[in-house]
Amino acid sequence: MEQPAKDYVDPPPAPLFNYGEFKRWSFYRALVAEFVATLLFLYVTVATVIGHLKQTDACGRVGLLGIAWVFGGMIFILVYCTAGISGGHINPAVTLGLLVATGEKVKAIMKHEYNRLGGGANSVAVGYSKGTALGAEIIGTFVLVYTVFSATDPKRSARDSHVPVLAPLPIGFAVFVVNLATIPITGTGINPARSFGAAVIYNHEKICDDQWIFWVGPFIGAVIAAIYHQYILRASAKALGSFRSNPVI
Amino acid sequence: MEQPAKDYVDPPPAPLFNYGEFKRWSFYRALVAEFVATLLFLYVTVATVIGHLKQTDACGRVGLLGIAWVFGGMIFILVYCTAGISGGHINPAVTLGLLVATGEKVKAIMKHEYNRLGGGANSVAVGYSKGTALGAEIIGTFVLVYTVFSATDPKRSARDSHVPVLAPLPIGFAVFVVNLATIPITGTGINPARSFGAAVIYNHEKICDDQWIFWVGPFIGAVIAAIYHQYILRASAKALGSFRSNPVI
Amino acid sequence: MEQPAKDYVDPPPAPLFNYGEFKRWSFYRALVAEFVATLLFLYVTVATVIGHLKQTDACGRVGLLGIAWVFGGMIFILVYCTAGISGGHINPAVTLGLLVATGEKVKAIMKHEYNRLGGGANSVAVGYSKGTALGAEIIGTFVLVYTVFSATDPKRSARDSHVPVLAPLPIGFAVFVVNLATIPITGTGINPARSFGAAVIYNHEKICDDQWIFWVGPFIGAVIAAIYHQYILRASAKALGSFRSNPVI
Amino acid sequence: MEQPAKDYVDPPPAPLFNYGEFKRWSFYRALVAEFVATLLFLYVTVATVIGHLKQTDACGRVGLLGIAWVFGGMIFILVYCTAGISGGHINPAVTLGLLVATGEKVKAIMKHEYNRLGGGANSVAVGYSKGTALGAEIIGTFVLVYTVFSATDPKRSARDSHVPVLAPLPIGFAVFVVNLATIPITGTGINPARSFGAAVIYNHEKICDDQWIFWVGPFIGAVIAAIYHQYILRASAKALGSFRSNPVI
Repeated sequence: MEQPAKDYVDPPPAPLFNYGEFKRWSFYRALVAEFVATLLFLYVTVATVIGHLKQTDACGRVGLLGIAWVFGGMIFILVYCTAGISGGHINPAVTLGLLVATGEKVKAIMKHEYNRLGGGANSVAVGYSKGTALGAEIIGTFVLVYTVFSATDPKRSARDSHVPVLAPLPIGFAVFVVNLATIPITGTGINPARSFGAAVIYNHEKICDDQWIFWVGPFIGAVIAAIYHQYILRASAKALGSFRSNPVI
Repeated sequence: MEQPAKDYVDPPPAPLFNYGEFKRWSFYRALVAEFVATLLFLYVTVATVIGHLKQTDACGRVGLLGIAWVFGGMIFILVYCTAGISGGHINPAVTLGLLVATGEKVKAIMKHEYNRLGGGANSVAVGYSKGTALGAEIIGTFVLVYTVFSATDPKRSARDSHVPVLAPLPIGFAVFVVNLATIPITGTGINPARSFGAAVIYNHEKICDDQWIFWVGPFIGAVIAAIYHQYILRASAKALGSFRSNPVI
Repeated sequence: MEQPAKDYVDPPPAPLFNYGEFKRWSFYRALVAEFVATLLFLYVTVATVIGHLKQTDACGRVGLLGIAWVFGGMIFILVYCTAGISGGHINPAVTLGLLVATGEKVKAIMKHEYNRLGGGANSVAVGYSKGTALGAEIIGTFVLVYTVFSATDPKRSARDSHVPVLAPLPIGFAVFVVNLATIPITGTGINPARSFGAAVIYNHEKICDDQWIFWVGPFIGAVIAAIYHQYILRASAKALGSFRSNPVI
Repeated sequence: MEQPAKDYVDPPPAPLFNYGEFKRWSFYRALVAEFVATLLFLYVTVATVIGHLKQTDACGRVGLLGIAWVFGGMIFILVYCTAGISGGHINPAVTLGLLVATGEKVKAIMKHEYNRLGGGANSVAVGYSKGTALGAEIIGTFVLVYTVFSATDPKRSARDSHVPVLAPLPIGFAVFVVNLATIPITGTGINPARSFGAAVIYNHEKICDDQWIFWVGPFIGAVIAAIYHQYILRASAKALGSFRSNPVI
């Protein structure tokens, strides 16, 4: 896996914690942008789920397909809108704080239904084992993180102009298909903060018992995707690229 | 929030009212383009809603998902078609005039169903409070206006070439997801002219009582989105941009 | 509507009939490409409709939404695939010949269902007047032709680089939304050849009585769209463009 | 079909088997990328189908439309993600090996449902003849392969800049529409490895009897599409191009 000569220079890794950042106005603005994007995401998706659950006429609902679209569609437009400002990653910590706050708000506004319907909290659905649910969370998170890495890889956009750099659309579609596949299994977590926040608000025994799945699953999925992208795909892309252009070397 | 040096010069603000415009043929043509686009929007969306409501077989309908798609899809193609001609903003005043006129036409053509089904007028759905409905209109309008600003921001397209400037698609998706979330709550207003026009035609007590929500909500949502974009995001984008390129300063 | 000075030179109009074309191999290849594209379009859409109608379990069908997607999706990929080869316009004459031929084939393969279900022939649905149906065909065709002109206008792509030139996607979406709106009214004609071919095969009295609607409607819609685009929009775009860049003149 | 002078030089054909490739790390990486992409594809699509089949409430399912979307959407994101690394073609041999392995895994995880529901195996649906099913597989495969060739044709992207080179989206849409049309007929094979793997796992008499259809159909469809693209379309595109620019020659 050694790569003596590189035809592309990686930017230096960003430090995990940059003290100077805290003095800048721009830092706080990026924070606000993340906050607003997460707030909109939670409001629109939770409202859709509640609207679906309240409707007693089964065929007058938006359906599972509609719920999958609202998650995918919101991610598409929010990544599109915030990509240039804060990086577009709906921050887990922000998500968590907001969800508890807005959850409470949603709860306040539509109290009765919220309690009756579970408030979009994640748990293992009847008829599925905990192992299946954990696998669903791992693979679902992997698909999302893998697509995000592929869509935003600077090496790729620098070299392969035929790979279209229309990043938000495939990211939105990844969320959409993962929801189609895993809503029936776990309600689709793939975000520990979201699952935890909803569990805090709803505070039901079964949901708390299953909570670890929505932390362990996404964590494993994201780590595997990061390793896969960094050590297999990026290396592969480079090597394959040089293989193609200089078949002799 | 002070910005002494700018790396991007904003175009001078367009005057709200430009006398010379009225002498130009081009001005009237833009008006015609807006008129036609709004007419098509109203016809296609109203026909879809009526077709959905007339169908007695619940599962043979296009469904809420189909209605959300027709609104999002029409906005996508109309913004795409008119963006170069009139700016692509379906004008509220034009909308209002047209809706009353075409509404009457729709009413004339399919009288019976129109009255029986409510003609697509906006009101607070049974099971939701007026506060919930107002919130839905504020946030729904915010999501739309926020996406429109992000998609058409000249500063952004000038600097961030990695933010794809495929404006009409995310705008159409914003309308789609807002419809998915708020059709069950208010029938999705996010346009005072549309709500007022439909209320005038239908003229039912409950619809008139709720009318203020579809004026106050969109107005607040649009104002917040404008302030947010102008004073937080645009400033933020500039500052963050300079922060990234000159980490020392 | 006079335009003394032009900043864009239109290509000379293509002659309606070019004798030299008939001697070229390329001409026959373009014909083959049109033929194949139309054949695929008819097969995939007719198979979807028949599959929908055969399914007795109402909620196990693709639904009206699925049918609208199959029409829009096929137009998207076929325009995408043939745009560089034959211009991508599914030719009405080709359509007509093919439909009669393949119709017969479809009929041969799934005889029983074809007769029982109407074979996708267009007619005015129960509960709608002939006037409503005619209006639906006029406006539906107008939306499609208007989008096609906007997406392929050479003047626009030359000047407005911010209008994305991703032509097949909005054209496919136009077909999608028109289907959502007019399937419940007429089954969505917007193509005389398709309607006539299906009527020939099915040969049912009501379908023949309504046939004129699917000739007159699309013809009027297409003519209005052509006039609108040529005399209003193209002129408007030019004038508005010069107005914007030289506000003094 | 002779073409004495070419304005575009085709790259030399890639050898079917290249010995040197086996010595490269990049080759094994591309293999891993194919493997992972196929694994994700199978997991997400099979989980969606199982989730759909397990749900007893007919209107609470993702529906045929949701299943068509999950196939099309997964192909879209996987082609997008792997296009620069391994060419993006979900390899049939890889598919076969994986499907047997993961099928077994899916079977192990949700044993009961898998056997009861058929595990997504392909067979001719009740009410359709074998001839209809064979035709559906031929045409479905043709549509997919034809779109893949059109989207990735180097000659086209070199010359026609107005044909947008956003390859993964139309390819995903092709899979989507083919699923809409042929799920009710055969469950949509268009991939012998997938059909064979599922048949091996499920091992039911009817599925084995119909197996030849899912080998012969896709093979014929792919061969016709390859011949069509190579001898009709590519030649046509070139000839038509020269015809347009030099109408005299």
